[in-house]
This record gives sequence, structure tokens and C-alpha cells, in this order.
Amino acid sequence: MAVSLSVDAVWVMLCAILVIFMQAGFVLLETGSTRMKNAGHVAGKQLLSFSVAALAFWAVGYGFTFGEGNTWIGLEGFFLKLPTDPKSIPLEVSFLFQLSFVAVSLAIAWGGFAERAKLSVYVIFGALYTVLIYPAVGHWVWGAGWLHELGKQDFAGSTVVHLQGAVAAFVATVMLGPRIGKFNKNGTPNLLPGHNQVYTVLGVLIIWLGWFGFNPGSTLTAKDGFFGFVALTTNLAAAAGSLTALVTVRVMTGKADVTMMLNGVLAALVAITASCAFVEPWAAVVIGGVAGSLAVFAAYSFERKGIDDPIYACSVHGVAGIWGTLSTGIFASPRLVEKVGIGGPGLLYGGGLKQLGVQALGVTAALLYVAVVSFVILWVMKKAIGLRVTEEEEVMGLDLSEHGAYGYPEQLQPPKGAIGEPLADTGTES
Amino acid sequence: MAVSLSVDAVWVMLCAILVIFMQAGFVLLETGSTRMKNAGHVAGKQLLSFSVAALAFWAVGYGFTFGEGNTWIGLEGFFLKLPTDPKSIPLEVSFLFQLSFVAVSLAIAWGGFAERAKLSVYVIFGALYTVLIYPAVGHWVWGAGWLHELGKQDFAGSTVVHLQGAVAAFVATVMLGPRIGKFNKNGTPNLLPGHNQVYTVLGVLIIWLGWFGFNPGSTLTAKDGFFGFVALTTNLAAAAGSLTALVTVRVMTGKADVTMMLNGVLAALVAITASCAFVEPWAAVVIGGVAGSLAVFAAYSFERKGIDDPIYACSVHGVAGIWGTLSTGIFASPRLVEKVGIGGPGLLYGGGLKQLGVQALGVTAALLYVAVVSFVILWVMKKAIGLRVTEEEEVMGLDLSEHGAYGYPEQLQPPKGAIGEPLADTGTES
Amino acid sequence: MAVSLSVDAVWVMLCAILVIFMQAGFVLLETGSTRMKNAGHVAGKQLLSFSVAALAFWAVGYGFTFGEGNTWIGLEGFFLKLPTDPKSIPLEVSFLFQLSFVAVSLAIAWGGFAERAKLSVYVIFGALYTVLIYPAVGHWVWGAGWLHELGKQDFAGSTVVHLQGAVAAFVATVMLGPRIGKFNKNGTPNLLPGHNQVYTVLGVLIIWLGWFGFNPGSTLTAKDGFFGFVALTTNLAAAAGSLTALVTVRVMTGKADVTMMLNGVLAALVAITASCAFVEPWAAVVIGGVAGSLAVFAAYSFERKGIDDPIYACSVHGVAGIWGTLSTGIFASPRLVEKVGIGGPGLLYGGGLKQLGVQALGVTAALLYVAVVSFVILWVMKKAIGLRVTEEEEVMGLDLSEHGAYGYPEQLQPPKGAIGEPLADTGTES
Repeated sequence: MAVSLSVDAVWVMLCAILVIFMQAGFVLLETGSTRMKNAGHVAGKQLLSFSVAALAFWAVGYGFTFGEGNTWIGLEGFFLKLPTDPKSIPLEVSFLFQLSFVAVSLAIAWGGFAERAKLSVYVIFGALYTVLIYPAVGHWVWGAGWLHELGKQDFAGSTVVHLQGAVAAFVATVMLGPRIGKFNKNGTPNLLPGHNQVYTVLGVLIIWLGWFGFNPGSTLTAKDGFFGFVALTTNLAAAAGSLTALVTVRVMTGKADVTMMLNGVLAALVAITASCAFVEPWAAVVIGGVAGSLAVFAAYSFERKGIDDPIYACSVHGVAGIWGTLSTGIFASPRLVEKVGIGGPGLLYGGGLKQLGVQALGVTAALLYVAVVSFVILWVMKKAIGLRVTEEEEVMGLDLSEHGAYGYPEQLQPPKGAIGEPLADTGTES
Repeated sequence: MAVSLSVDAVWVMLCAILVIFMQAGFVLLETGSTRMKNAGHVAGKQLLSFSVAALAFWAVGYGFTFGEGNTWIGLEGFFLKLPTDPKSIPLEVSFLFQLSFVAVSLAIAWGGFAERAKLSVYVIFGALYTVLIYPAVGHWVWGAGWLHELGKQDFAGSTVVHLQGAVAAFVATVMLGPRIGKFNKNGTPNLLPGHNQVYTVLGVLIIWLGWFGFNPGSTLTAKDGFFGFVALTTNLAAAAGSLTALVTVRVMTGKADVTMMLNGVLAALVAITASCAFVEPWAAVVIGGVAGSLAVFAAYSFERKGIDDPIYACSVHGVAGIWGTLSTGIFASPRLVEKVGIGGPGLLYGGGLKQLGVQALGVTAALLYVAVVSFVILWVMKKAIGLRVTEEEEVMGLDLSEHGAYGYPEQLQPPKGAIGEPLADTGTES
Repeated sequence: MAVSLSVDAVWVMLCAILVIFMQAGFVLLETGSTRMKNAGHVAGKQLLSFSVAALAFWAVGYGFTFGEGNTWIGLEGFFLKLPTDPKSIPLEVSFLFQLSFVAVSLAIAWGGFAERAKLSVYVIFGALYTVLIYPAVGHWVWGAGWLHELGKQDFAGSTVVHLQGAVAAFVATVMLGPRIGKFNKNGTPNLLPGHNQVYTVLGVLIIWLGWFGFNPGSTLTAKDGFFGFVALTTNLAAAAGSLTALVTVRVMTGKADVTMMLNGVLAALVAITASCAFVEPWAAVVIGGVAGSLAVFAAYSFERKGIDDPIYACSVHGVAGIWGTLSTGIFASPRLVEKVGIGGPGLLYGGGLKQLGVQALGVTAALLYVAVVSFVILWVMKKAIGLRVTEEEEVMGLDLSEHGAYGYPEQLQPPKGAIGEPLADTGTES
């Protein structure tokens, strides 16, 4: 292996590790955004679903996504059985990098299931998402698929990773219905605040950090140092999103809501994910800034429509995923389009509506595909095994009902007659 | 220095940093698995013992482990005084990578001391472990030692790092006796649940992440990209261990116990540590899966035998360390054995019982050596200074008794007449 | 781009990511060191100020610091508009690495504002610090400035990063005055303990980890593997500081105070930051060890003088920053000075008082500049918008007063008539 290839291998491996680290970020973001009675469950299911994805994507998902096949799906490379290509970084490194992306997409989807889905749902839907949903759109855009052939620009996955996850979250939250107590009989929403804002801030910082693997790593090479440029646009967008979200929510509510600032950062990162390699730094600031503001409006708007989206998957990853995908159709700069070699320049650079149209088509196709397939899967599961825990279990908390023990046993008292019982046979704590 | 060597240096440095990050994972795992009244102590002693190890391994331990000497011990390289080898990565980078391993081994050992050992024990035993225990077995297997000459396969240390730590933990927990309240008079165990399952899940995720340095970094080079293969087998094993442990505990107890799932992940990682470079991906799934299940059985079994093992060091690192070491004797594949160049193929590939025998010998030797030396050290310490805090101090919690302040001062009230006193001279909090 | 340059780019990018990760460490250290009622605020403002710095340093600060100009200030490179240098790593990678340093400096400064400054102060002072304060001293020492010309040794910024932050923190805490309840009428201090020592230990571990980017990354190249040496001295110093601080506080108070041990680690890291590339390993142990002990004395001393320094910025980053800067004047070894190519050897190696004098001059100049400019900025802000929240808001906690919601809503009850109100319009939690 040439030295330059080993540099690339180290670079992509580093990025894979950074993106896998985002799982820890999601654990913190998701537990921090939910209640103490569900904390062990919410944290544990993240590790569980990562495990499911790691096996399913190895066995089947990677082959469907990246194997040679037709314009709709890949059809080789199951269990990573592919010939070695001496001109590429090791297949295993590519695989781990791509696995880290699926796992993020799945983590986003879980936002729509939070605090009420059965544990088994995470295992089954997680496997099917990894095998049937993600690989299709992944192949269309990043494999030898039809959207790739049309020149769809999605450098690191505003559509492939984020929008897909958000659509699955949306379908899930609608099918599960809102959490008990979220809405009053007259439809007005109640606040079910997450229990730990240190966790959420820390989670978002880790996710931000992971994004230095997500976007710059998608260059898949360190050769020309272009990853530095991608890291810059990514970071500028995130910073801008943080500020616009904070200003927006301050103007709307009079308070500098921390949760909305965090949503702004994430939305900006989601939006710049498609465009990070195609747009100039000033445009990155604009794209991120708009995304930050959009995320706040969208969060309130979903809530007003009676949709319970506890981790803001739909607004942060859905709305900003769409905006980010469309943004290259506006801001893609000719010199960068030429460098990357996908699609054409955006509206502002004389590209007309062509690229914007391709981007819109990609959004629509992904949205429809994921919505339909998620719905079918969840509908069958609902009929077969049920998606939601009982009302009693939900009120008690999933830590007790699903796992038999609180995540914070010294800070919460089990309700009388709780079905949770200690692992050890007898006795009480001293 | 050749460019390819600087790539190796960056790669190994990255891995050293990842493995040092596991200290943060152990802080989270260990504090989360213990009680609020000991949280500051448990966290703080981890940093303290890392500091002790960092100095002791630099001054003496590294030389004993890797210096030239005889088949039993190395005898040069104290204070890293070694001639520069222009064909190797910088000595300091090698040192930091190896230090990160000792520190993990030590972190495992602490599991057996948790919630009742004096702070001074961590300093003294930590230094002696780094200098007298770890380097011997380390030299036998990874230096120019007798087990290395026999062809013992232990790629990243199922024996050297994990089994050693677990045996020390076992000796400590037996000599210290169980925590107050752990067992009733009739010998039945009580549940002393850890106080924060978000910490434990997060800790295990960080440890999992660190393992991408632990195993793949043990290639010590990025040259041929083989580290990617090692990362793949490692990740597959961990994922399998998570699932088998969860299924096992679900069948045994009816509940999807999160702690046991975490033990499954760790046990699988421990097991694949010896074999990650010697076995095919399918075998990694088997090795990890078996380890996950074993860890659950072992945890209950140790508890039934009256052994109080709060962080599950004996089951997760001991039992799985043995299983992992033996597993190459079964699954080592000829093409990989040839690539790595240590030992022979396993039972399944026509290697007969030869490699399995070497592996078993290695396990036995390490187990005996660590058990005897740990026992002697702790016995002398027990006579000289005592190992365990008083009953009153243990009930009060080590945060107050050893450090003078709770780790969670707003959430815990000191008992009346507590010996803890504020750092500031007078007055009370507003 | 030559392969060796792409290795350097990956190395510096890795280090930038590690240092940016220190933001998460500061979130944990700072929230853990303060009270529950301010946790969301303290965490959130960290991310907010990182965003401000990311934009301001891109637009203006980097140009002032590193652009060509005169001996006092750089005057080009705003918005990173600089010609591409094919012999350097990508400008964007350099920028992100340097940004991560400013952000650490700013995080240190915030220690002096904690638990009582208005949120708007973080935005405005953060921007001005990034643009007017840090770049001046940065240019003097690391750009083509007058201190650089004099041969001032400050490898990774004991002065540039840490002392500057500490001086700003000092000015802020004096101008804001102590927190309500910190001092009694007779001037004796009260303990206002931080709420979570797991956070603080974890934070310090992450900061320690980040320092493997901070100091070794300041080589800016992987070419000769010298970064390994720098990593070694850094790690030895930190380990030594942990132990000396613990011994010092144990002797002084009879208790092994965890907070003081953490301060010792950080002080040692701060001190070795200037000298890591100039001194031998044994000297690193001395420098770190002295810093650890100094940090403890300084913490008590500042408190006795009526200065409320909640995160110990003045003692850990100020006093140790001065000690570290001076230390090269004592310990700088000729062979390493020659290698690095800045300044001359220290007192112990026959360098006389020359280098020590330059170091002292650098400390004095930085101290005066930052003190004066910080004072002017804060004085104007105090007159214009006020720096501190009202007494009522401070007692209630900034989570409610500034952000409208507790960071721990399930663990804290809002006071009656609190001005915080839920985001959602009506109803109560189930």
C-alpha cells in the first residue's frame, strides 16, 4: 500500500471514530432531553441499537448500499466479501466509516420513539432500518444510483443521513402518538422538560466534535488537504446556527432558551452537511444561520400541530436536512463544484434552477421512500407485537418496566407495587 | 524519519490518546456502578492512580516490560534511557501507548477495591502493580519473554492487560471482604445498585471507542492498513456480546438488564483483544457472542459464591480474558497467523491442541503470578497500614471520610457529627 | 501537496479536534464546580461563547494574530483571505488549530464571571476578547511580534493562552465582586461547593486528553516525531502536579481534597505548556510538581484576600502560567533550544539570567496589556449595560433568570413567583 494511501486510511479511520463517538453525544442529548424515570432505558437502547446496526450493516446493509448492482440497489459485498482494491483504503475502514453514518441516522430516528416505545421495537426496527431503508437512499445518492447519475449534491448526507432519520422519526411519533401528558384535551401542549441540561450541552458539543469526522471525513482522503476547507465551512455554519437560534428564541419568548440554541447548532450542522464542500465560507455562515432560525420556528410549529417530537428530530434533522439539501442548489460555487465533480453550480452563480431541481427531486424521493417503508414496517409491527408500552408502564417509566431497575436508583422511589424487582434475590440496601 | 514512519507515529499516538481516554470511560463506569456517597472518591482515585502509573511506568515499569534482559524480565530503559532507533516510531510515542495499557489494567484491578479501600492503598498498590506485577507478564508475552518464545498469541492483551487486572481485583475483593450490606447473614446477596446508569452506558461507549485504539493500535503501524481488519473484528465482537448478554439476562430474569448488556459488550471486547488479529470476522462474532453470555453467568455465579465484585471485574475481565486467550487456540486462521507471525493455527483449522495448550499455559502462568504477588503485596499492606476504612467511614461514604466533602454536596446531607468539614474556615452556604 | 504535508495536516487537524474537545472538558469542570441552579447557564454559555469566538476569530482575530503587519499587530488575513502556500498545511487547518487555543483562553476567562454575569456579557466580552485582547499578545509571541524577536519561549501558550485568560478572569472577578454568600461580613470565606465532582474529574481528564493536542500539536508537524517528546514531558508534568497538589492539601488540611488535586493537574499542564519542548523529562516532573503545589497555596491565598475565583482560574492558569513561562528561563536545555530554534538555554545550563529576563518581560507585558484592556472593556460595559444580574436573579439562579428553565427541572423547585415560565403555554407535567 502506498504511503499516501496509509495516510488516507488513518484519516478515514480517525473520522470513523469521531462519528462513532457521536453515539455518546446522542446518549447525552437524548437522556438529557427526557425524564429521569427513563434515563437508563434511553441510554441503554442507544448502545443496543448501535450493536444491531453494526451486525446488520456488516451482513447486508453495506452490500445493498455500496455494492455493484443496479440503479436502485447494490447487490454484492454482503459480509464485506469483496475483492481487495490495492488503490483504495482498506475495505474495513470504509465500512466502519459508513457504519458510523447509519448509526447516526438511526439515532435520529429514535427521537420519534422516545419514552414510550417497547425495547423490542428498537431491535427490530433498528435492524430493518439498517437493511431496508437507509441502503436504498444511500445507494441512490452515494452508490451507482439514479440520483447520483442526476448529479445530486449531498456531500456528507443532509438527505441520506439526516432527512432519512427524521422522516422515520416523524412516522414513528405519529404512529405512536404523543407521550402521556404532552397535550391537554384542548390540544394545548405541556412542557415535559428534559432532566439534565449539562448532558444536552455536552451531548451537542460531542456531536459537533463528531462532525469534524462526518463532513471532512467524507472527502475520504487527506491527499490535497481539502478536508480542512470542509471542516471550516462546517464549523462556521454551526457557530452561526447557535447565534441565530438564540436570537430567534429570545425575540419570540423573551428567554435565551438553551435547548433552542442547541437545536440551532445541530440544525446548522445538518444543513451544511450536504453543502460543506460546495459552498464558500460566507455561504456556510448564511446556510447555518438560516438553519438555526428555522429550527426554532419548526420546533414550535410541530408542537402546535400536535406532534410530540421530544428530541426535535423532525425540526432539527428534517427541516434543516431539507434546507441543507436545497442550499447547494442556491449557493454551490463553480470552483468547488468543479473540484468535487458532482452536479452543477447553484442559482446564485448562474446555474439557474437545474441543480435546485435535482436537489428538490432528491429530497422528495427520499422523503417518500422512507415515509412509506417506515410506515409499512411500523404498521406490521404494531399489528404483530405492538409498538407502545402500556399506560401504566409509561407512567412508571421504562427503566422499571423494561429493565427492572431505575437508572437513578438513589434519586427515584419506585411506585408501590412496581413490577421492577432487584436482581439480587432478597434483602434491602443498607 | 521516513514519511511512512511519521504516519505510523501519528497512528500510534492517536491510539495512545484513545486508550488514555478509556480512563474517562472507567471514571463513568465505576462511579455510575457505585453509590453517590462515594462518587467523588471513585472518580478522583482514577485520576490519581493514572498519575502514579504515569510516573512509575516511566521510571521503572517500561524498562522491566520492554527492555532487553532475560526471558523473565527486562533490565534496561529505565526513565526511557534507550538509544534512538531511526527505524522505529519515537520511543516516547511507544511509551505513551504502552502506558495507556497499564493504566487500563490498573483501572480493572480497582474494581475489586471499590467503595471500601483507603485512598493510600490506591497510591501504593498502584505503584507496585505498575512496577512489579504488570511488567513481568508483559515481558513474558510482549517482550523477549518465555511465553513469547513459545508462540503465545495475545494480540492486544486479553491476558496481559485484562486477566492481570481481574486477578488483582479478585485477590483484593477477597482480602477486603464484601461491602457492608452486600450479603445477609445467611449469605444471600443484596442489590447495591450503582447510582447513575447514564454514566455507565456513556462509560462503556467511551471504553468501546477507546478499543479502536487498543486493538487496531497494537498493529503499531499503519503501513498495510491491517489495523482496519482488526478494528472490524473488534467492533463485530462487541456488537455480538451486547446482544447475547441481553438475551441471556432476559431469559434468566425476565428483564432486559442494562448493566448486564454493558458487561456483555465489555466482555466481548476483552475476549476479542487476544484474537482480533488472528480470527476471521465470523469467528469474532462467535467469540464476542460467547463472551457476552459468559459474563452474565459469571456475574451471578461470583455473587452466589459470596464474592462482592462491584464493577464486575472478575466476570468481565477475568472470565472473558481467559476465554479470549483460549479462543485463538480454537479459531486462529492460518492466513492471519502467517500475517501476524506468532504461534500457529487453531483447533478448527487443523492446528490440533498445540496452540490451545500454549494459550492455556499462558493463562495459568499469568493467573498464578498475579495472584501470588498481589496477595503478598496486599497482605503486607494490610499488616502494615490496613486496607479498609472503618465501618463508620464506609457507611458515611468515602467522599466525606477520605476527602472531606461530598461529590454531590447539594444532593446528600452529611450525617450528624460527620468528620468532613468545609475547606473554607467558617460559615455556611447561603 | 506532498505526502509528508498531508501527514502534517492530519496531525494538526487531529490536534485541533482534541483541543476543541477541551470545550467539553470546560463545560464539565465549570458546571461541576458551580451550583445546580446555574448548571444549564454555565454549560450553555460555553457553547455560545465558542460560537462567538469561531466567527470573530475567522473574521478578524486570526488576521490580527498571524497576518503580516508590524511588530505590534497583524494586518491581513481577515476572513482567512490569504494566498495559498503550497509548502504549508492548509490554512483552514491552521486556523482551526489556532481557534481552539483562543477558545481555551476564553474558557479560562469565564471562570471569573461564573454564577453572576449576565448572558449578554459572554457574547460581547467574548467577541472583544477574541478580536482585541488575545490577538495582540498572540502576535507579539507567535506572530512576527516584538517578544518573538526577543526570543521569548512559549511553546504552546502558558502566557499567550493561559495567563491571558487568567488575567481577564481576575479583572472580571474583581469588577463583578464575589458571589452572594461567598464571604461573611468579617471577610471570612464560606464554602460554595460545586455540585458534581464526577463532572469535575471527568472534565479534567478530558482537558488532560486535549492537552495531547495542545502541546504536541504545537510542533505543527509530524515530520521528525518530536511531538512524541512533547507529549511525554506534558504527561509527566501533569502526573507530578496531581501528586504534589494532593500531598500539599493533605498536609495543609488533613484531607485529600479532590478539587485541589484537579487544580494541581491543570496547573502542571499550564506550566509545562511553555516549556514542554524546551526541557528534559526530569525537569518536566519538577516544573509540574512545583506547579501543583503552587496551585494549592495560591487558591487559599486568593480566597484569603477576598477574591472569589470559583473555577480557580487565577491560581491554576495565572500563577502556574507565570511559573511555567519563567521555568524555561531556568530549565531550557541547550540541545532542545537548538532543536526548536527560539531563545537560549536556561539558568541551570549556563544561560545566565538572559532568557529568564525575556520570559519575565513577556509575562509582565502580557499581564499589563490584558489587565488594562480587559478593565477598559468591562468598565465601559458596566456603565453601558451592567455586568451583573440582580441580587434576586442570582439567588434564584441564572438558569431561571436568564434562560427561563432549570437545567435540572426534576431536581430543583422554582421559588414562588419565579420569573421563569415554561416554553409550552399551559398545563403541568404528568
